[in-house]
Amino acid sequence: MIVLKDASYVVRDARRVERDVDVVIEGQRIALIGHAGPERPDWDKIDCRGKAVIPGLVNAHTHLYQSMLKGRRDDLPLVEWCEQVTFPFVRAVLARAWHGDGSEEVGRLWSLLGAMEMIRGGVTCCVDMDISFDNIIEAWCEVGVRAVAAMTMVDRWVPDDLLMPREVTYERTRALVERWHNYPPEAPLVQVALGPSAPFTCSHEMLAWIREQSEVHDLTVSTHVSETLWEVEHSLKECGKPPLAYLEELGLLERPLLAVHGVHLTPEEVELARHRPVTVVHNPKSNMKLGSGVAPIDDLRRAGIAVALGTDGAASNDLLDMFEEMRAAAMLQKVARRDPTVIDARDVFEMATEGGARACRIDAGTLDEGRLADIAIVDLSGPHTFGLTDEIVPLLVYCGRSSDVEDVIVNGRPVLRNRQMVTVDEEVLIREARRAGREYA
Amino acid sequence: MIVLKDASYVVRDARRVERDVDVVIEGQRIALIGHAGPERPDWDKIDCRGKAVIPGLVNAHTHLYQSMLKGRRDDLPLVEWCEQVTFPFVRAVLARAWHGDGSEEVGRLWSLLGAMEMIRGGVTCCVDMDISFDNIIEAWCEVGVRAVAAMTMVDRWVPDDLLMPREVTYERTRALVERWHNYPPEAPLVQVALGPSAPFTCSHEMLAWIREQSEVHDLTVSTHVSETLWEVEHSLKECGKPPLAYLEELGLLERPLLAVHGVHLTPEEVELARHRPVTVVHNPKSNMKLGSGVAPIDDLRRAGIAVALGTDGAASNDLLDMFEEMRAAAMLQKVARRDPTVIDARDVFEMATEGGARACRIDAGTLDEGRLADIAIVDLSGPHTFGLTDEIVPLLVYCGRSSDVEDVIVNGRPVLRNRQMVTVDEEVLIREARRAGREYA
Repeated sequence: MIVLKDASYVVRDARRVERDVDVVIEGQRIALIGHAGPERPDWDKIDCRGKAVIPGLVNAHTHLYQSMLKGRRDDLPLVEWCEQVTFPFVRAVLARAWHGDGSEEVGRLWSLLGAMEMIRGGVTCCVDMDISFDNIIEAWCEVGVRAVAAMTMVDRWVPDDLLMPREVTYERTRALVERWHNYPPEAPLVQVALGPSAPFTCSHEMLAWIREQSEVHDLTVSTHVSETLWEVEHSLKECGKPPLAYLEELGLLERPLLAVHGVHLTPEEVELARHRPVTVVHNPKSNMKLGSGVAPIDDLRRAGIAVALGTDGAASNDLLDMFEEMRAAAMLQKVARRDPTVIDARDVFEMATEGGARACRIDAGTLDEGRLADIAIVDLSGPHTFGLTDEIVPLLVYCGRSSDVEDVIVNGRPVLRNRQMVTVDEEVLIREARRAGREYA
Repeated sequence: MIVLKDASYVVRDARRVERDVDVVIEGQRIALIGHAGPERPDWDKIDCRGKAVIPGLVNAHTHLYQSMLKGRRDDLPLVEWCEQVTFPFVRAVLARAWHGDGSEEVGRLWSLLGAMEMIRGGVTCCVDMDISFDNIIEAWCEVGVRAVAAMTMVDRWVPDDLLMPREVTYERTRALVERWHNYPPEAPLVQVALGPSAPFTCSHEMLAWIREQSEVHDLTVSTHVSETLWEVEHSLKECGKPPLAYLEELGLLERPLLAVHGVHLTPEEVELARHRPVTVVHNPKSNMKLGSGVAPIDDLRRAGIAVALGTDGAASNDLLDMFEEMRAAAMLQKVARRDPTVIDARDVFEMATEGGARACRIDAGTLDEGRLADIAIVDLSGPHTFGLTDEIVPLLVYCGRSSDVEDVIVNGRPVLRNRQMVTVDEEVLIREARRAGREYA
């Protein structure tokens, strides 16, 4: 039994905050928010005075392999950036993996890097899009982070040497679902999703297969949509309609769909997404860095469409930092609309917690009795978080930093304690990753 | 003699990086960048393996009193925000100060808060705009930060009860200059500047006085210019020209001028600023949060106009974090122009170092022998700064965090060592600030 004792603030969600209470965790779930009573010997106690206990943040879109591509070219538009930054790395990794030389190990290492960075920043769950997951899932289990493995699928547009035959992709996807979907005992925090890379990188046939598999196995679908104007123009030329409308035509909006980016969604597409199980995953920093544009988050929210928040991969951000992402989301929308009232701190906090948890279909995202204990504990003692206000959510959103996170609990298990990773030896892993990564850099 | 030993990276400036060298500091200045030779007993050695030694960052625009206004309303445009967030606080502080009850102490505390936050983030110099400085300068001396005290002057627009009689303002400004300008022995890191709040808050007469005093005492002038569209329209109506053009008419562009914000500068004003001693101080996060707009930094740089970077006050940011500010500057410009090539990491690093140092007229901003030793040492061991690249400046700009700063040296004196403030007791001061601040919150 873990007791988070005397929390100065318990942020149940963006709009419900309690002061000076305890949070009791039993097994995987929150047993009590209130007063735990006199201390008992079986308590694993964490002193939360001067701290805020918040729901674990959910990074609803990333590509962890890019943890090895931080600090690269920052002066390229999306297509050139793919060609010059990400493809060469992917190509090198694949070449070695296909030669069966055991270099899949590098995948484990980049996932460990990403998972450690996220845990240190209070992120308890992520959606990772990648093309191969066995070593990656091993890494998540090692660290103890919750994650959705979204199998990236493409059968057009990318260079030939990066394309797998379609049947191989299907086979690998089936195997992934069979082995890892829906919290198998060997990976109880993992589920699988289908990740058509983008409407323009998948054939009609592949998208139809994905639609069908999603239904058969009840799989979420995660796909990049309308990230750039180029993509929208391309879609109009090829299909006579913009990308999300095209997905609607294929029936994909009937499925739990993570529409990632959605920068250039048209008003008609926003209308199509209403009353459908669609979550738009907003990645403000990536959209800024790549110069893609500003997603119409205010319109989406007004239309009642669910919005979650993601960092995107580290090569276009270059942090997996949901505190920064929250404030970027608020600030970017305010400046894009030249109106500071269009969105506020509570809205983006909700996107990063409840919005993400709903997108991942996990019973978390708020702190309530009975829910999964995915929790971050944030230190408020630094001069940068000095607040003379009880409005703790705005303070967390605008002043909180990943480095303020002291403890993280996932599924009732402490994974960060006093700013130290509990589950893995961070220093050793970073050294290993540096050595292994050099071969691909 | 301080020796920064075996630095993995010495970032002399945005475009000159050396690897595996030492930096030797003697007195206030950098004596050597190279190899310090065998260790000697008189060395104060800082092990810099795995770290980057960089020029201290310069926060070229802030209002430290707002360190007590973090996390407040985030849904108001500039004018309402002044009226509802900052004025009530200023009013309460002034009321107490005018009653002579010793409450100026609160000014010392907010400056300590701000100075500690900045030092922890590798900021070695700032320009602070405020209306009263004696206690504030005391705080800077205590912490050991370099600073420019820009005396804020207004004689119109703000509420009557916040206005001082013009002659009182002049008197206080003269006294400030006399006591504190140009590095007096009791405050050897301080200089004074004149801070007409904005063209629309100062009468023609006051601006003429400022122009004259600036010349007589060789004082820099720092003023908010073209922050909002409202201001530009107001200026067009009142003076028939936009704000910077109006300042030019008054001769203020002949003086060292910090034109803060410059969001809505017209192409004609950009032309006016060329070949003049004008620095535009860009505050991207503040401009975003208040929905003010995006300054034409790319046009300014193309025109050869100096650009520095600032955080603005903590109430509109809400951090005094120049790492975040650098990446916000790069990312905001990229997305505003829908073009990731308009500005890059090196450009914003330069704005935050050399640009700021030039704006403050200090002999720092790059690491070179003979220059003032204003230096930050950045730890690169975290998973979030994992880079497989030697392009250290992009890595610092996109992944570096204030919390990665381990040591800070200002004017040859260590003020942060191993992430601990050397000069002041941070915990005690934060407690005092909380107690004192409550009376004004």
